[in-house]
Amino acid sequence: MNVTAAIITIGDELLIGQVVDTNSAWIARNLNKLGIDVLRRVAVGDDRNAIINALNEELQASQLIIMTGGLGPTADDITKPLLNEYFSGKIVVDEAVLEHVKNIFAKRNRPFLERNMKQAEVPDVCTVLFNKMGTAPGMWFEQDGKVIISLPGVPFEMVHIMEQEVLPRLKERFISDALLHRSVVTAGEGESFIAEKIKDIEEALPAHIRLAYLPGAGMVKLRLTGRGADANRLATELKSLQKQIADRLEHIVVAMEDIPLEQVLGRWFSANNATLGMAESCTGGFIAHHITQVQGSSAYFKGCIVCYSNDIKEKVLGVRKETIEQYGAISEQTVTELVKGALKVLDVEYAFAVTGLMSEGGESDKIEVGTVWMAVADKNTVATRKMWFPFDRARNKEMTVSMGMLLLWKFITKS
Amino acid sequence: MNVTAAIITIGDELLIGQVVDTNSAWIARNLNKLGIDVLRRVAVGDDRNAIINALNEELQASQLIIMTGGLGPTADDITKPLLNEYFSGKIVVDEAVLEHVKNIFAKRNRPFLERNMKQAEVPDVCTVLFNKMGTAPGMWFEQDGKVIISLPGVPFEMVHIMEQEVLPRLKERFISDALLHRSVVTAGEGESFIAEKIKDIEEALPAHIRLAYLPGAGMVKLRLTGRGADANRLATELKSLQKQIADRLEHIVVAMEDIPLEQVLGRWFSANNATLGMAESCTGGFIAHHITQVQGSSAYFKGCIVCYSNDIKEKVLGVRKETIEQYGAISEQTVTELVKGALKVLDVEYAFAVTGLMSEGGESDKIEVGTVWMAVADKNTVATRKMWFPFDRARNKEMTVSMGMLLLWKFITKS
Repeated sequence: MNVTAAIITIGDELLIGQVVDTNSAWIARNLNKLGIDVLRRVAVGDDRNAIINALNEELQASQLIIMTGGLGPTADDITKPLLNEYFSGKIVVDEAVLEHVKNIFAKRNRPFLERNMKQAEVPDVCTVLFNKMGTAPGMWFEQDGKVIISLPGVPFEMVHIMEQEVLPRLKERFISDALLHRSVVTAGEGESFIAEKIKDIEEALPAHIRLAYLPGAGMVKLRLTGRGADANRLATELKSLQKQIADRLEHIVVAMEDIPLEQVLGRWFSANNATLGMAESCTGGFIAHHITQVQGSSAYFKGCIVCYSNDIKEKVLGVRKETIEQYGAISEQTVTELVKGALKVLDVEYAFAVTGLMSEGGESDKIEVGTVWMAVADKNTVATRKMWFPFDRARNKEMTVSMGMLLLWKFITKS
Repeated sequence: MNVTAAIITIGDELLIGQVVDTNSAWIARNLNKLGIDVLRRVAVGDDRNAIINALNEELQASQLIIMTGGLGPTADDITKPLLNEYFSGKIVVDEAVLEHVKNIFAKRNRPFLERNMKQAEVPDVCTVLFNKMGTAPGMWFEQDGKVIISLPGVPFEMVHIMEQEVLPRLKERFISDALLHRSVVTAGEGESFIAEKIKDIEEALPAHIRLAYLPGAGMVKLRLTGRGADANRLATELKSLQKQIADRLEHIVVAMEDIPLEQVLGRWFSANNATLGMAESCTGGFIAHHITQVQGSSAYFKGCIVCYSNDIKEKVLGVRKETIEQYGAISEQTVTELVKGALKVLDVEYAFAVTGLMSEGGESDKIEVGTVWMAVADKNTVATRKMWFPFDRARNKEMTVSMGMLLLWKFITKS
């Protein structure tokens, strides 16, 4: 029987949609690694009754509750006094936290205010979870064999306290079955095509192993999830199923673990000791950003010319004025000169280039919004491709990034 | 009395944290604009009982339930048959959807499979919400005066159906009080400093108006939320409070509406008819990406040299080899030459440059991880600044982007 958990996120900003909740996903992912099952995630506002109701409800089914938010120094942050009351505690000043908070203000040359003092106050019935990254400490309560944890909502403070204080304690506190995942990342085919291809494998899955399809831009991730008392046996079982699926799907398999495409690319460039450079127009540096998210990317990624204006295309990358005049900035001819320019100017073995129209304005009188030309090249070959995306500016940009990295991957692996 | 709503997101991937839920924030934001209050957001797995329990629970407090996910063509997608049963319907084929799905497969040159046929099946007790962007239609159910809507989990499909089919119908269906927001965006001071400054204004707020603090990287957004029957009167009231707060906070106010810093910058550059260019090393194009997220940015943003390798710093931007050898790539001297190089090579009136070390590796034997040098320049002045961030690679990059745009904003507005 697995330990079950619920995540309660607190804050009006979640209910009016002003912020996207990234905390829940991080917490869920890390509880999962410990073999703790998240049953539900609930978001409620900065409202006393809503918080208490959520807590009561989730405590019925779960042994562990992790709450985030509502611990700041301002009047809309009500979680701490509420939990103090809920667990019949008394507010006391934690001297270690007080000194830490005073230090933070001193270092930043900011006056220490009366209300900051409040950050050092904690219920005497909790274990204080020290917050090195900020002023609001986390709190660990226990009641009737269940654990209730309250953490600040600022993502990097939450992550820090979870890693340093919460996860090691949870590991010790709860024993549970192993829960393991294995992924196969595919590119270029849809969910239903894949489902049809591996129908028999999916139907023959044992009850303790599940398969999920996670579609993304141009890609589908397949995730096998298994649980069992014997972690080694489960791992062998999952590995064999993963191989079966990958063998069946052959050439559309991009990776055998859940990593992003930029990391798949990074491994290839590292392994092949090759260099990469780019010329980005319509994506404005977003592809280079992805590539450089990978630690160690400086070993193969030399740089990128974000050539938003035609001027830069010509002056920095050497695209001929006549090419742009005759064919337009968004054309096969221009993208070809861009990619050749990138190869030369950045002095790299492989180059990628992209030019397109992401939303109204610019050349939208001459060319359809969503039109994109891409090119990949090495010193012998240039491959170009035209695409069209029907979405809004942000989504068109994201799709262009995904499809661009995919084109690059296909080019280097000749698939 | 406002209409109340709950959002239920379905999918095991949410509970193991493999994907971040962006749908809920989008839906909440858009219900809010209509004056519909979201009371709770709940995420559950692809599990029959969990979905039914969530539906029963949320129906107790809310008049409107919006569900996303679980409508795909694969075996882990169980929402449709479950809702059919829940509302005692009968599955029928929707001819319009069937034709649409067949067309999609024909256009993509993919075989139409038996399981795709299922996408055209719908309960006869719902209103079908046509999905132009994908194969799974949305469904609108009514029971005891309450509305239950089921939508696909793919974000852009969800958005499309919401905009085309759901929001206009909801507006017609529900009458409600006005709910209005007004924001003041600040930069450079912390939450508690601001709270102290405007304490009297906050304490004097009427019961129907609330103030929330939304801290971000180097910035704090203040959001006033008011509700009332008379929208015009409420708008006047909020506007006056917003002005009161902004007058009190003076020079730290960046914007009087909830817009990102790149848009604040964009307005300034547009209004002043000035051009902007960049040289990014450690941020790998991420700042240029932000700048080009703004529609119309091509009018002022000419481009960016992502100079990840020293080679590009020297060859493309003209940084002297000796400067890098003597002071290092991450130094005031190098960033000064980078920003001057960007001014010249990109031929712009304002340039921004950044170089730093985001994580272990590279120069981490010589310089502390998290060290960043930034510079802004026009033809007369260069301003440089050293910063240090204590986080992981991704967060350090984000912080550098925020603080970089802030430095640029302070430079151009001389504040």
